[in-house]
Amino acid sequence: MSKKLTTRSENYSEWYNELVVKADLAENSGVRGCMVIKPYGYAIWEKMKDELDRQFKETGHQNAYFPIFVPKHMFEAEEKNAEGFAKEAAIVTHYRLKNDPDKPGKLMVDPQAKLEEELIVRPTSEAIIWSTYKKWIQSYRDLPIMINQWANVVRWEMRTRLFLRTAEFLWQEGHTAHATKQEAIAETEQMLHVYAKFAEEHMAVPVLRGRKTDSERFAGAEDTLCIEALMQDGKALQAGTSHFLGQNFADAFDVKFVNKEGKQELVWGTSWGVSTRLMGALIMAHSDDAGLVLPPKLAPIQVVIVPIYRNEESLNVVMESANKIADELKSKGISVKVDDDDNRKPGWKFAEYELKGVPLRIAIGPRDVENNVVELARRDTQSKSSVSQEGLSDHISQLLDEIQENIYAKALTYRNEHITKVETYAEFKQVLEEKGGFVSAHWDGTPETEQKIKEETKATIRCILMNNEQEEGSCIISGNPSKERVIFAKAY
Amino acid sequence: MSKKLTTRSENYSEWYNELVVKADLAENSGVRGCMVIKPYGYAIWEKMKDELDRQFKETGHQNAYFPIFVPKHMFEAEEKNAEGFAKEAAIVTHYRLKNDPDKPGKLMVDPQAKLEEELIVRPTSEAIIWSTYKKWIQSYRDLPIMINQWANVVRWEMRTRLFLRTAEFLWQEGHTAHATKQEAIAETEQMLHVYAKFAEEHMAVPVLRGRKTDSERFAGAEDTLCIEALMQDGKALQAGTSHFLGQNFADAFDVKFVNKEGKQELVWGTSWGVSTRLMGALIMAHSDDAGLVLPPKLAPIQVVIVPIYRNEESLNVVMESANKIADELKSKGISVKVDDDDNRKPGWKFAEYELKGVPLRIAIGPRDVENNVVELARRDTQSKSSVSQEGLSDHISQLLDEIQENIYAKALTYRNEHITKVETYAEFKQVLEEKGGFVSAHWDGTPETEQKIKEETKATIRCILMNNEQEEGSCIISGNPSKERVIFAKAY
Repeated sequence: MSKKLTTRSENYSEWYNELVVKADLAENSGVRGCMVIKPYGYAIWEKMKDELDRQFKETGHQNAYFPIFVPKHMFEAEEKNAEGFAKEAAIVTHYRLKNDPDKPGKLMVDPQAKLEEELIVRPTSEAIIWSTYKKWIQSYRDLPIMINQWANVVRWEMRTRLFLRTAEFLWQEGHTAHATKQEAIAETEQMLHVYAKFAEEHMAVPVLRGRKTDSERFAGAEDTLCIEALMQDGKALQAGTSHFLGQNFADAFDVKFVNKEGKQELVWGTSWGVSTRLMGALIMAHSDDAGLVLPPKLAPIQVVIVPIYRNEESLNVVMESANKIADELKSKGISVKVDDDDNRKPGWKFAEYELKGVPLRIAIGPRDVENNVVELARRDTQSKSSVSQEGLSDHISQLLDEIQENIYAKALTYRNEHITKVETYAEFKQVLEEKGGFVSAHWDGTPETEQKIKEETKATIRCILMNNEQEEGSCIISGNPSKERVIFAKAY
Repeated sequence: MSKKLTTRSENYSEWYNELVVKADLAENSGVRGCMVIKPYGYAIWEKMKDELDRQFKETGHQNAYFPIFVPKHMFEAEEKNAEGFAKEAAIVTHYRLKNDPDKPGKLMVDPQAKLEEELIVRPTSEAIIWSTYKKWIQSYRDLPIMINQWANVVRWEMRTRLFLRTAEFLWQEGHTAHATKQEAIAETEQMLHVYAKFAEEHMAVPVLRGRKTDSERFAGAEDTLCIEALMQDGKALQAGTSHFLGQNFADAFDVKFVNKEGKQELVWGTSWGVSTRLMGALIMAHSDDAGLVLPPKLAPIQVVIVPIYRNEESLNVVMESANKIADELKSKGISVKVDDDDNRKPGWKFAEYELKGVPLRIAIGPRDVENNVVELARRDTQSKSSVSQEGLSDHISQLLDEIQENIYAKALTYRNEHITKVETYAEFKQVLEEKGGFVSAHWDGTPETEQKIKEETKATIRCILMNNEQEEGSCIISGNPSKERVIFAKAY
């Protein structure tokens, strides 16, 4: 069958690429580095978006929308930041095409329609948003401002991979402004916990919460907090970041407020974001050689019902039961699809929904109707059982919770088994090479050592854990004293 | 008070511009022609979006996401269309900035990073989507494809106005592909009715349903259906369009399918869209000199409760009642805000929520608590009454429905009074000049007459009504025979 995937052990990377396309999640478009998110993939993203949006609002944020373009001079205003993104930006220089006089039917850029100032397609919106906040903020009464934006952004990446790294991607970016440092730090931490909770409770992906080292931090930030997930190939994936911006952007864009004492102060800021990259994390964390495995909370279809029949008469009997069960499930808020497509055989359908990660499959034939049972198959364990139709919707409701928990527990066990403490550089390299996963090691705190390790092993410091245990030790490379372990890994 | 608006009779256009800004809906950004949609404005847009999205899904559509960029050759593939948008497009020509060697701290476009092929920021997505559909469609079994996308688009408009005409705007664009002409036509009509129903039942804006003339039609379409609303200044506003594309895009992008008989055929298409322009229609249709008037179904805050108190003791008493009422309203699914901001006086708050169009205001003071009543003020009629707290939430629930209906009825009466039948060109000009609104007149069906009327009066043919009454007559200009009236108006 053409739907057959390369296995993870054969080639993990190829398995992922095939899975994304074959499960109808996304595909490459005719535009370099940009993807088409297909309806099934987008439906998962929508579920993520809805839940995150709910949590953002619950924590006091409002949505708004800011322009897609950043004029060049705003880029320059926050130089450190601009230099980073300036190297990989889509730049609008003209505003008109005209007919090419030399090539009938062809269009060319009209040289007369050159912009006075170039516009950069936003790689992130700090510049445009802080230049707007300047107009909104005069007094401490105007603070805090707690805004989130759902948007597309563009970074001209040279090597792209569906969901994991694309030139255009969808994301949300929160941008808040506060009167005090403490409040901004509390917000930075709050949003990290929102992300962590979402990853664990909805995506069923356990994450480490920590902070980035100086060299891995967002250029415009004083502190970057992150959540780090572990994929089945032992590589880490940064799933979300929350930045404490200090007064950097307020300084760059001259955003001041009059405090309660009547004095002018620079505003404190945060920004935080997650993107369609989460789709990559979700896919890679749970799926297997038969296809996607989706946690019920994010599955667009939680239960699929496949009727089994020989002739029209048995179809009618079976469909009556199938529809009754579907209605019952729907009334419990469970999303269900009855697949009565006559063009496909049940075997084909079974493989299809397995590939698409539908958590539960119900098969029902004439004999099941007679015996008042159905065949119930779990995607996560691939186990099947015959179950009474009596109380079926309650049973399924419970089972969906159980599957959600099981998927998380499995990922957690794997992740916990792949945090390895090492004491020497030899051990460090061996674990990276043979076992993979997170490696917990002492580091002397210098960017030089960090850089050397990265060059020699491709491992980076993923984070320094929040509330990290303080422990005397010596750096695995330099032997210099260290007060705590940090988390290394090879990463996406 | 600085919140005071220019009145509609003084200057309707200025009234609108001020209202959009003062009611915190949107503002101009530092990027030419692009707006910032502020949280309150975005909250209204979100309500529109949620309801439309629900209706799209109910009518069998799925969301997906396609790239923001269209390579130049795709633009060229559908020439008629490209020529229209090509004149006002944002064009990406480079992918990198570098430090300007002549100006320290400044950035410049890196001439070495010129794209081989220019990318156009999508003004609409037919080109990119049909070039994708080509890959998805082989057989009649792959049809229909019914996809919608929520996205930002860019058209380099020279004269912009908040919500009504901006360089970047938010919209949804549906793009469907069908095996038969009839099916595509049925889809085009279905979506027009979805739009009309939404405008009338949610926005409380009555609309005419009709089709565009050849010269007003979307260049890539065979037929363009539209809904036309009437603003309070007597000008029409096109609020949504639904295009029957025939086989035009299938032809341009070579999208064929094998039909049930095994023969290759070109696919039939539709596209349909509404945008943040709807915000302009909503604002202009109902609001008055005191500010916004929002229909309850789209109001982010349906009820505001303003406590009235002299001292802390009376505050406590009043807040207890206020919170109890708020909880009751929330439990009925009504969105409510209790404004206990100590920095503002009740009078200021009354004006503020009037400006923001909150449908119902509850004021409650110590004496109201004693008497078990509240003061209830309606935004639409600006009437006030003292109402018992007994059964208040039921009363309010009913009242919100009543307000929704009343706002619609008012707009409908105004609209119906402003459809004027005329028989002569003199009458036509007089009505346009003195009364405004829609003018129903006989037209000979030629683009020449249409053009002449447009040049002389600025009025365009807004639409030929669906199921238009057939009636013999003669063209108001040429005197040539006509079989039906068409609807003219000056328009936004």
